[in-house]
Amino acid sequence: MDERERFLADGRAALEWAADYLERVGELPVLAQVEPGEVRARLPAAAPEQPEPFEAVLRDLDEILLPGITHWQHPRYFAYFAVSASRPGVLAELLAAALNPVAILWRTSPASTELEGVVCDWVARLLGLPEGWHGHIEDSASTSTLAALIAARHATGRDLVVCSEHAHSSVEKGARMLGMRLRKVEVDDAFRMRVDGLDLSEAAAVVPTVGTTSTTSVDPVAEVADACARTGTWLHVDAAYAGAAMVCEEHRWAFAGVERADSLVVNAHKWMLTPMDCSLLWTSRPADFRAAFSLIPEYLRTPDAEDALSLNEYGPALGRRFRSLKLWAVLRCHGRSGLQRMIREHVRLAERFEGWVRDEPGWELCAPRPFSVVCFRREGSDADNQAILERVNAGGEIFISHTRLHDSYVLRLAIGSERTTEEDVRRAWDAIRAAAE
Amino acid sequence: MDERERFLADGRAALEWAADYLERVGELPVLAQVEPGEVRARLPAAAPEQPEPFEAVLRDLDEILLPGITHWQHPRYFAYFAVSASRPGVLAELLAAALNPVAILWRTSPASTELEGVVCDWVARLLGLPEGWHGHIEDSASTSTLAALIAARHATGRDLVVCSEHAHSSVEKGARMLGMRLRKVEVDDAFRMRVDGLDLSEAAAVVPTVGTTSTTSVDPVAEVADACARTGTWLHVDAAYAGAAMVCEEHRWAFAGVERADSLVVNAHKWMLTPMDCSLLWTSRPADFRAAFSLIPEYLRTPDAEDALSLNEYGPALGRRFRSLKLWAVLRCHGRSGLQRMIREHVRLAERFEGWVRDEPGWELCAPRPFSVVCFRREGSDADNQAILERVNAGGEIFISHTRLHDSYVLRLAIGSERTTEEDVRRAWDAIRAAAE
Repeated sequence: MDERERFLADGRAALEWAADYLERVGELPVLAQVEPGEVRARLPAAAPEQPEPFEAVLRDLDEILLPGITHWQHPRYFAYFAVSASRPGVLAELLAAALNPVAILWRTSPASTELEGVVCDWVARLLGLPEGWHGHIEDSASTSTLAALIAARHATGRDLVVCSEHAHSSVEKGARMLGMRLRKVEVDDAFRMRVDGLDLSEAAAVVPTVGTTSTTSVDPVAEVADACARTGTWLHVDAAYAGAAMVCEEHRWAFAGVERADSLVVNAHKWMLTPMDCSLLWTSRPADFRAAFSLIPEYLRTPDAEDALSLNEYGPALGRRFRSLKLWAVLRCHGRSGLQRMIREHVRLAERFEGWVRDEPGWELCAPRPFSVVCFRREGSDADNQAILERVNAGGEIFISHTRLHDSYVLRLAIGSERTTEEDVRRAWDAIRAAAE
Repeated sequence: MDERERFLADGRAALEWAADYLERVGELPVLAQVEPGEVRARLPAAAPEQPEPFEAVLRDLDEILLPGITHWQHPRYFAYFAVSASRPGVLAELLAAALNPVAILWRTSPASTELEGVVCDWVARLLGLPEGWHGHIEDSASTSTLAALIAARHATGRDLVVCSEHAHSSVEKGARMLGMRLRKVEVDDAFRMRVDGLDLSEAAAVVPTVGTTSTTSVDPVAEVADACARTGTWLHVDAAYAGAAMVCEEHRWAFAGVERADSLVVNAHKWMLTPMDCSLLWTSRPADFRAAFSLIPEYLRTPDAEDALSLNEYGPALGRRFRSLKLWAVLRCHGRSGLQRMIREHVRLAERFEGWVRDEPGWELCAPRPFSVVCFRREGSDADNQAILERVNAGGEIFISHTRLHDSYVLRLAIGSERTTEEDVRRAWDAIRAAAE
């Protein structure tokens, strides 16, 4: 068998493995049923001396790795933020890896560089963002926010970051990594950043969130933008999860003020059907990004540099993989209508679940539900609720996570998988109530 | 057709596209023959309203994107550092995307988290590193070095970074992003960091390079380690390219002193047959990494957190994709012997090319050649050499890059593709000489 034939034979086996997996994932326990160290203990201590066939890799994937996988593609994955790597995105990753362009500069990969700009423009238009923003793709919202804080410090010469106490941990982590100071602002009863008395006079950046991690609350971006305008503070909006919902007009209220942002992050790998990793970072101030990140040594100088955009000049990394291809495939194969349909169905399902909790004696809702995440708890102690979570997750039928609100332990059900049906949400509610008995 | 059947049909089309591409890539012009903006101009301004079939994506990949791809998989790609995404790694990316685990915590993906540790251990052993180092995977060496500088600043409380003037631009960029100061040390005649008079007393970190970007020179790591020992400076070794060569005993001289490093980066996506992105970062001081990066908000607390390793505590990102799977597939399907064979063949080919240059009147070698990169020039002006480079790259038969040494414009030929044969290297030399006439 020549190289091509072997690649096709191995590839067909891999493809069928993936197809079978995606078909049967709903029958597997959602949360990996292994103990720490168990997977590692089943793997050899050294790489093989001689080549092994690819089928050995597939076999061990099944036998050794699969029991240690928590199934993010499962229809009853309801923890953190549920996601889907939809099939066009999965196949595009194969193509991206086969092409393997490394976009250190425009000329080392014009197509991936320009497609990255195009898909960021497409999504910007889908979400109703202003025209002309500069978009590129980072691996995760942590990196996108880190990049924004770097640009903000460079542009303002200040080193204070402000966010609410419900902002994602990546804001605090970013500030700490950069040696910047952090000030956390209190939230109101609906877990939104309080803007009365918000003083940004020393702040390099403020990071309001559209869709916080705990409750998906929406900070008042417009009021924060007003405060920024008074002090020259950089406005970075974290809409990593909820940004995708803006593809539907009825959710656009949550983006009020975002048009005044200096930078914005939305993760396509969260609620936009794209495989990890695909975090979209836009800025209305590309020159400030370029001033913070551009650094061109001799060996990277090219004759086309004046006209061509090299994305390494807008973020931390030099080498960049072809992340735009999967997002392009996803946007084309689902279309705007497909994304809207998914978002609306997920919000509808979350509304259903919210209704069931509201109507059930002994249970309570713990936060407003603007999108597809429901925060709730059993009346009683934190220990009771924690026991419910651990019992239900150990059962393997569903996987949910928790947070802490007003100093109470609160359960979270997050809907975001393209496979989730109303029946799955119903089974979740049954499993949770059963675990409470 | 149901979802599964459509996925299989689309997948077979994608697989065949990839197989054909990898077979015919050597017939395409290496460097994309497009002008800045040309690809973008051929793409629509908005995402489609309705879903399109995947075959439309494949068609446009062929017709619109492919002419704008610079072919890193081409056997005559000799620019920067040549790389290969070998077939097992390509297929593993399909599987990783289908599984799509997001390793924010151990429990959200035990298998990918533990496999990441295992493959880092495997490579550490292949390269002869000390046992017990803690390894994880970042997207690029830029991020790995950034992470190391963050850990170094946190551990030392200092903010000065030291490297040679031939260190990769990512060191300077990292220092700038972090608001740290940078001092560049001169190099000797063989482009190695000068250690006479090296004073690290105020330095948080020093970053010697094993295989610099311009010439692949090797800084004297052992002497730098001596200087670090006197001042408590963090020793971060950048072996992004040349580290892979340590899989062969005859190159281990270049790692002398690396066993005393605090951290080390080697890119598996460079000379280790793995698709972008797979940058391996080891540390002998994991507690210092954890102290710099760990931050666990309530919603990420899990009952297994005491026993289980969550890799977000060792680097900038929280969400982490399944990068270890492709490296695992590559290591198994090539084996140690396969990697050694490739490294030795590339070094042999570079030696051949070096010999041809040495023997040719009117041409000169410009730096020692420890690995697979040859620095050379035509006797004459910088403009002459630049014209040679531009002419030969415009021809599309080969792609080379350049650097500047002792204030002269110098051509670089980098060998690193699994497809490159002696015939390809011979064609490169013929094309370069023809371009000089």
